[in-house]
Amino acid sequence: MTNRKQPLLRIYGDMHSGNCYKIALLMNHLDLPHEWQHVDIMKGESRTPSFLARNPNGRIPLLELPDGRCLAESNAILNFLASGTALLPDDPWMRAQVLQWQFFEQYSHEPYIATARYIAVYLGLPEARRAEYEGKQTGGHAALQVMESHLKNLDYFVGERFTIADISLYAYTHVADEGGFSLAAYPAIGRWLARIAAHPRHVTMDE
Amino acid sequence: MTNRKQPLLRIYGDMHSGNCYKIALLMNHLDLPHEWQHVDIMKGESRTPSFLARNPNGRIPLLELPDGRCLAESNAILNFLASGTALLPDDPWMRAQVLQWQFFEQYSHEPYIATARYIAVYLGLPEARRAEYEGKQTGGHAALQVMESHLKNLDYFVGERFTIADISLYAYTHVADEGGFSLAAYPAIGRWLARIAAHPRHVTMDE
Repeated sequence: MTNRKQPLLRIYGDMHSGNCYKIALLMNHLDLPHEWQHVDIMKGESRTPSFLARNPNGRIPLLELPDGRCLAESNAILNFLASGTALLPDDPWMRAQVLQWQFFEQYSHEPYIATARYIAVYLGLPEARRAEYEGKQTGGHAALQVMESHLKNLDYFVGERFTIADISLYAYTHVADEGGFSLAAYPAIGRWLARIAAHPRHVTMDE
Repeated sequence: MTNRKQPLLRIYGDMHSGNCYKIALLMNHLDLPHEWQHVDIMKGESRTPSFLARNPNGRIPLLELPDGRCLAESNAILNFLASGTALLPDDPWMRAQVLQWQFFEQYSHEPYIATARYIAVYLGLPEARRAEYEGKQTGGHAALQVMESHLKNLDYFVGERFTIADISLYAYTHVADEGGFSLAAYPAIGRWLARIAAHPRHVTMDE
């Protein structure tokens, strides 16, 4: 329950989008009061004039502050909200490594694993996009291999503690199978996924 | 001239890659002594065992500290090196906006504009990749339109001052024509590019 008399952070998003789910995970870990405004991208709700006035790039998630200022890009939102908390270390080298993994996620991971899942789950794997879907396999497995090597002897991505780097990479990795990526060959990733999901403040995508 | 007796920051990169050029621009603006280690991706030099030991994701640029620690991802490197300088404001909201534009660059701009340029300039626009090259036009122009709207009444991307957000977006925008993107329809981008290039500490891609 949120107190409606208090001005709240508002998130525009779709809980089944991994990029939006990152924010939901963070909100739960930090116990931050907020409102969730559902945006259905399949109905064009991220391309309406009122949404484009808030985010000219027409993408979710979007954070709106009580004074109306807006911030786009899931990983920028995570950095902003987690600043000063245990989920984002103050140490400059650790912060840099958090960013390194978040940029890795957006450039080398999401365009393969999330896009394959989008084509399969949201679009129903139409024949016209099957070649594109299959073309995502190599890049997706390359990203998973980089993660597997890193996690072989580590519990978390940065500084051996749970940070927003883990949140960013968890979001689409834990549903990679929905994009056709079996995680059977990645035991260290499997252990890390279970570690994240076991946290008392974890929330699943369906909640 | 750099003093070889001092341990130096080392950058592994290729000055003609926009992602690497970002680091060269920052180094010049901050006057940071460093060594540049050229890596020729067309010769597979980013996939050698010794390079993969430094960056398992096999990409340039890569920053190596004098003690051997390495940091990948151009925008993570910019944030690390610019921290505490005038190029990266301390204010959390401004830092968040810098990140927003850097994630925009890596997700909505670079995969279209830089990849089209790569196909044209590095690969010589082979017939087998012409459809992919042409498919980059819509996304690239969408990114340029977002930038144009933002710059219509502003001199810089964040806080009306030159920051690493401008460096990140300048890198591939100023050579967008090499990927087939004419900037004629984007006068605000044109003024912004000229503003960046006129800075006394600017360095071109060919220097």
